[in-house]
Amino acid sequence: MESLRFLIDVALILFAAKTFGIIARKLHAPEVVGEIIAGLIIGPAVIGIVDQSDFISKMAEIGVIMLMFEAGLTTDMKKLKQTGLKATAIACAGVFVPIVLGTVLFMSFYGFGPIGSEQFIKGLFIGTIMAATSVSITVAALKELGKLSSTVGTTVVSAAIIDDVIVIVVLTFVLSAKGSGTSVWTTMLKAIMFFAIAIVSGFVVYKAFKWLDARYEHTRRIPIAALCYCMFMAYVAERYFGIADITGAYVAGVVLCNLHDVKYVERKVDVSSYMVFAPIFFAGIGLKVSFENFNPTFLFFSIAFVFVALLSKIIGCGSAAKLCKFNWNDSLKIGIGMMTRGEVALITAQKGLHAGLITSDYFTAVILMILVSSILAPVLLKVLYKPKSA
Amino acid sequence: MESLRFLIDVALILFAAKTFGIIARKLHAPEVVGEIIAGLIIGPAVIGIVDQSDFISKMAEIGVIMLMFEAGLTTDMKKLKQTGLKATAIACAGVFVPIVLGTVLFMSFYGFGPIGSEQFIKGLFIGTIMAATSVSITVAALKELGKLSSTVGTTVVSAAIIDDVIVIVVLTFVLSAKGSGTSVWTTMLKAIMFFAIAIVSGFVVYKAFKWLDARYEHTRRIPIAALCYCMFMAYVAERYFGIADITGAYVAGVVLCNLHDVKYVERKVDVSSYMVFAPIFFAGIGLKVSFENFNPTFLFFSIAFVFVALLSKIIGCGSAAKLCKFNWNDSLKIGIGMMTRGEVALITAQKGLHAGLITSDYFTAVILMILVSSILAPVLLKVLYKPKSA
Repeated sequence: MESLRFLIDVALILFAAKTFGIIARKLHAPEVVGEIIAGLIIGPAVIGIVDQSDFISKMAEIGVIMLMFEAGLTTDMKKLKQTGLKATAIACAGVFVPIVLGTVLFMSFYGFGPIGSEQFIKGLFIGTIMAATSVSITVAALKELGKLSSTVGTTVVSAAIIDDVIVIVVLTFVLSAKGSGTSVWTTMLKAIMFFAIAIVSGFVVYKAFKWLDARYEHTRRIPIAALCYCMFMAYVAERYFGIADITGAYVAGVVLCNLHDVKYVERKVDVSSYMVFAPIFFAGIGLKVSFENFNPTFLFFSIAFVFVALLSKIIGCGSAAKLCKFNWNDSLKIGIGMMTRGEVALITAQKGLHAGLITSDYFTAVILMILVSSILAPVLLKVLYKPKSA
Repeated sequence: MESLRFLIDVALILFAAKTFGIIARKLHAPEVVGEIIAGLIIGPAVIGIVDQSDFISKMAEIGVIMLMFEAGLTTDMKKLKQTGLKATAIACAGVFVPIVLGTVLFMSFYGFGPIGSEQFIKGLFIGTIMAATSVSITVAALKELGKLSSTVGTTVVSAAIIDDVIVIVVLTFVLSAKGSGTSVWTTMLKAIMFFAIAIVSGFVVYKAFKWLDARYEHTRRIPIAALCYCMFMAYVAERYFGIADITGAYVAGVVLCNLHDVKYVERKVDVSSYMVFAPIFFAGIGLKVSFENFNPTFLFFSIAFVFVALLSKIIGCGSAAKLCKFNWNDSLKIGIGMMTRGEVALITAQKGLHAGLITSDYFTAVILMILVSSILAPVLLKVLYKPKSA
């Protein structure tokens, strides 16, 4: 009936990801970096035996959702409450600095314009692309290091969630300045409503799970129901409230994080995740890279773009963390943890393309930023965590 | 970027499948029957909130491949060798009887024709559709009953594998009689070559896994590599040798069934399977059913078709089993275990459609056969196994 091509794609991705993951570990690099490089190598960028098909990208999406759900499940509620305010400050600085530096970067390449001019708005948009953190790679790296539930880990994850909300508000603002998109107030209202509804419904859901848990501890129905809830929240967040699906999945995890059976749930989700979905997500980042449409005139801008994007997050988030009384080492970890970019940056870029703010040439720079940050952040985090464990 | 519809589809399927699975168990019916009915209810046949999308059918395919791989992994090699000859006899009878009765059924509805006539070949084709056992539902039912590695279980699974090979040979014969398709000898040669290559390469693969196992027992790389091997074999079987992908997956499982770490591998594959893929496969059977194109003039034929299809397998395989010195109860179990039909019947019907042997109206009958046999077989097996366990 239908082609079984997807089977061999999945098999190749899993095999390459695991192999390169093991090689990465032998070289004392994080496994997730090996998995991304595996995707880069088997994908169109190098040997091209696997394409980024629709099926693969959907599997990858489930992978990142599972990853963020697990991050939510392993959240320490106390730490989350303690770090909440600090995370907000870090998120704000982590959006502000990249937007300013991104605007300056764009205008120093393509000419300055007064505030409010088309040129200025275009610059602002380039900054907005830089502002969207995608924390999933950091989550994977911290998980590998066993530091996901640490104060630094909790701060980074919650700052990234808040970052997501700020960026969609800023994005709406920039798009409406260009005369397209909805009003900023609607966007803000929807974001606030999402969290309000998530919290209220979360109480009911938590009670329901607690009841299930008391009656049927360690039965399959609990992790399956939890996974359904996670996917439902991911869908609802993006579809009805304009919030990234991974944020919805994380919130679902936080709702269930105090469940008595949470370890059991996390273990079952984790097996499905590492056996199939997560490697597809990581390798998928590499698979997306293609040098086919590479534009050499943009090379210099792309390199500068990546450089500014990475540095601006480290400066913004790092100094905000330092002001929030983290020590130097932890501040740097937070800055580096926040510098990872992912699909949200691509989605943002896509919206700018539709609004006529950028041309498709800029996608090379965005993908390069995703790739470099995804590889660099886990490596740097591992280095920073090393002295303590040694 | 892309719609997240697939997320909510997966969540709905998992939730409905688990819920109806639990209800089925409360009613002392097998869980898998509940999962199929869940698909029927949420699918286009009843309330229609979930469609059988391309993504869902690919996930379902991975589900059935995992299921057959697990069946292979839990194979008892000794029993497989003991039952080999008997299984061959049962498979032959289980193809012969449905083909004869199917031909008679068709001709008694639409007029008799001499041997070799178009009418006769059409009848033969209707019989061939009936002949293709799909053992996955039986595997799931036996697994639920804890009888998958029993003598009856091993016999049914290996008979179904042989059945698959005989049916593709018969199908090629029928299609070539109609003047389309490849030669029977090529088909047979390819089937033999597949098993020859699988056995020879299997030794090498087994050695490689044994080496991995000795060095890295209980590490994730072993189940992941095993899953890759399974998907690779499934792909190769169908793509290059014309054998069903589930047969390839089962053979991959048998190759690894003597591995020291086999239980660990099976457990990891099992979690991924029951958390996501298997419920999608079972519910997917129900999802395929739609009464939209239902043709009332075919109703009577369809009912007769389903009736003959089920009975012919019970008679054919059951009496062959009795002749092979199984007792009455076990013979009946084997007959019922062999009566489940699945995708292979649909693929066969599809090929007949292309060759002009049947019209698309017959699909209703085929889907009805798949649905009824998938629901009936697990229920009857549970009833037959009950007196012993009570």
